[in-house]
Amino acid sequence: MFKKILIANRGEIATRISRACSELGIKSVAIYAEPDRYALHVKKADEAYSLGPDPLLGYLNPHRVVNLAVEAGCDALHPGYGFLSENPKLAEICARRGITFIGPDAETIRIMGDKTLARQAMIDAGIPVIPGTQSSLGSVDEAIAVAGEIGYPVMLKASGGGGGRGIRRCNDEAELRNSYARVISEAEKAFGRSELFLEKYIDRPRHIEVQVLGDAFGNVIHLFERDCSIQRRHQKLIEIAPSPQLDESQRTYIGELAVRAARAVNYRNAGTVEFLLDPEGRFYFMEMNTRLQVEHTVTEQITGIDVVQEQTRIAAGLPLSVSQADVSHRGYAIQFRINAEDPQNNFLPSFGRITRYYSPGGPGVRTDAAIYTGYEIPPYYDSLCAKLTVWALDWDQAVRRARRALNDMGLYGVKSTIPYYLEILNHPDFVQHRLDTTFVERHPELTRYASRRRPEWAAIIAVAIATREGL
Amino acid sequence: MFKKILIANRGEIATRISRACSELGIKSVAIYAEPDRYALHVKKADEAYSLGPDPLLGYLNPHRVVNLAVEAGCDALHPGYGFLSENPKLAEICARRGITFIGPDAETIRIMGDKTLARQAMIDAGIPVIPGTQSSLGSVDEAIAVAGEIGYPVMLKASGGGGGRGIRRCNDEAELRNSYARVISEAEKAFGRSELFLEKYIDRPRHIEVQVLGDAFGNVIHLFERDCSIQRRHQKLIEIAPSPQLDESQRTYIGELAVRAARAVNYRNAGTVEFLLDPEGRFYFMEMNTRLQVEHTVTEQITGIDVVQEQTRIAAGLPLSVSQADVSHRGYAIQFRINAEDPQNNFLPSFGRITRYYSPGGPGVRTDAAIYTGYEIPPYYDSLCAKLTVWALDWDQAVRRARRALNDMGLYGVKSTIPYYLEILNHPDFVQHRLDTTFVERHPELTRYASRRRPEWAAIIAVAIATREGL
Repeated sequence: MFKKILIANRGEIATRISRACSELGIKSVAIYAEPDRYALHVKKADEAYSLGPDPLLGYLNPHRVVNLAVEAGCDALHPGYGFLSENPKLAEICARRGITFIGPDAETIRIMGDKTLARQAMIDAGIPVIPGTQSSLGSVDEAIAVAGEIGYPVMLKASGGGGGRGIRRCNDEAELRNSYARVISEAEKAFGRSELFLEKYIDRPRHIEVQVLGDAFGNVIHLFERDCSIQRRHQKLIEIAPSPQLDESQRTYIGELAVRAARAVNYRNAGTVEFLLDPEGRFYFMEMNTRLQVEHTVTEQITGIDVVQEQTRIAAGLPLSVSQADVSHRGYAIQFRINAEDPQNNFLPSFGRITRYYSPGGPGVRTDAAIYTGYEIPPYYDSLCAKLTVWALDWDQAVRRARRALNDMGLYGVKSTIPYYLEILNHPDFVQHRLDTTFVERHPELTRYASRRRPEWAAIIAVAIATREGL
Repeated sequence: MFKKILIANRGEIATRISRACSELGIKSVAIYAEPDRYALHVKKADEAYSLGPDPLLGYLNPHRVVNLAVEAGCDALHPGYGFLSENPKLAEICARRGITFIGPDAETIRIMGDKTLARQAMIDAGIPVIPGTQSSLGSVDEAIAVAGEIGYPVMLKASGGGGGRGIRRCNDEAELRNSYARVISEAEKAFGRSELFLEKYIDRPRHIEVQVLGDAFGNVIHLFERDCSIQRRHQKLIEIAPSPQLDESQRTYIGELAVRAARAVNYRNAGTVEFLLDPEGRFYFMEMNTRLQVEHTVTEQITGIDVVQEQTRIAAGLPLSVSQADVSHRGYAIQFRINAEDPQNNFLPSFGRITRYYSPGGPGVRTDAAIYTGYEIPPYYDSLCAKLTVWALDWDQAVRRARRALNDMGLYGVKSTIPYYLEILNHPDFVQHRLDTTFVERHPELTRYASRRRPEWAAIIAVAIATREGL
């Protein structure tokens, strides 16, 4: 097993990875840009190294990060999600410098990161894909011809895109013509490449994804699925495992499909195969994420398996700690991304000082936070500041527990998505798990809640403030 | 279902019960003595009523408590543990005043609260008991005669005792003669009654207890066992579920034995049947606790069943939500009682202001806390200020996770049992689960750790202090 791991990330996921290292008896090394000097991930690691004053350049420079890993005496590197996690160069540089990259090899990252190549690999493996172009479009006229064949509405997508960027719905020829140049320009700016492709638009799809794990011994297993249909502008907000919308035969089918997809690319380490499920019950491969995901917590809660520890075992050349037959799911887990955003102001980021933070507790509650009382959320990064994951034996109880736990959480000084989630939890479509990816967009009224300060914490804060801050 | 429940308790258990009420859609009512005005349980309830300035009299006065329940418009009352929870008068007064008592009926509490009656009921039901007197002793000479029959060492116990008080080991006749008057005097003072009985001392026993639930329809089930062998002076410190020392056949046997014991007294609501397990594998009934226990969390973590919600359902006349066949256990849970005590100073209570409290997080971690930054622990109550419960699929991982989570917890301003537990977690007998109730006493060296401030939190505290306390 490794002795020391560099965590090439920040925020809650860096803390999450430190915890896994600690439980495995491995030292963890944090890196931080200067605005992150007082970040929780720095405190939770065994060692920490500065990336310098720029808030982003260091986190995004694979050479810099691997150099630090070498200098700190690390034998492995965990990329987390975002930043360099899906950059094949990082995996390559690690390999060259003798640092084990905790993730799939560069070639797998490259193939699955290219929507066109990934799609072809899935077609070859017999995995259903969304009808559309198989190679990148040559011109707007070609796009219009293809759209005429598969029928409007269609989705125009940048080949290098992801996380909701470089993607646009076109309802007719005029919109397609209009969007074409825009998406190219967006893609060039964001991902440095301009290839586009086009696919059929699925009406009111569910987002269903399957967590897979593959080791160096040819073992590939799945840890069941997650329903991530509650998204805003393709950014997930709430994730659920397993999907309360699937029956056991669908669950088995999609799990096996995901394993087949992973085997087709000799997948090694943890990955996620994302599908759309249409209202008629058909699954279509969407993309594969070749890294740990934000929402891995819900899978951990229903299976009991520590995904980050499994990633580490796999990278160290150990076999998976479980076989498919050993993996079972129990109850329901729901994760809420607690974003420092103002849902009542178009989800505008709400950075700044957290004057008070109180973690929720009690049965079935897990928190993965990047914050603490007095912490100042820097304006340079994404707005995710904590994740709340609830678990219960059945769906109804999970929903009731989620309401309780969100009310139990105290977060002051910044606006957050907490009150918005409480509204979603009271919507009958959520309670009865009639979820699709258009839910958030179709229910703008859920952001029109009354502002309120939850009374339970007000008196406690008053006491805390009155307290002399002795050590 | 009930509309409003009065919680006749304080501290973490009152907060725990409020959370269950909230998840069931029931209003909760807190009561508080003046020293508890800023306690967390007051903030977490929907309403709160003062018991007046005396720190204890209000909590211990069943008339007062039931009057408040009536005045607040409650239809039920939950007693928690300690205080009046095992006082049959509270159940009686509730019944008379039309308030449903969330617990067994007064008669069951009375029988099981009297060690002699409880023992006889168990003998009648064919449950193995520790060899000893069947009725209370008449004199020290009778005690000496009985001890001669069953052999030294023997345990002298007050009939009304519990929680480690009114109990003494006697290794020979001289010690028995010496202790007799002392235990009588202790018992009179603590419990208002002087009956004593005597039983064989079991060398290095394991403390194994079984959680049972019985409803009004004659359904009695068990939720498997807990190992509570890590105790100091009969006060539990660390509890585990299931017992890693039992095999499945022992687990089935002890579960069925506990159900038989509960059936024998027509047990209704949640209760715990406590057994001693001797090194030869024999189980002996010790006592039955007719209330929720501090350590119910570990049972919840392995079964997924919310014990407090089940108690409430049962009291409301609903059937149990699960049958025995539905109940399964998964993984291992370990609870640590975070007491505000100084293990290096004979576990002297360490009351006062909590300057900083940081909850641990991540996978498999549950907290049930009665504290927050700025809270002042009053000197009038027991020293339990939080409970940390960890869960993992296997025992080794649970132990590693426990170390990580204890290090993850930040508690400043008072001394606590956290560093002591970290020492226990590194002892090979704990790691290899060779546990018995003499462990703590046999290892005084585990309190001789180096004092240390965990570095990860120090910088964060510095930031927090520097923060202006704006709201």
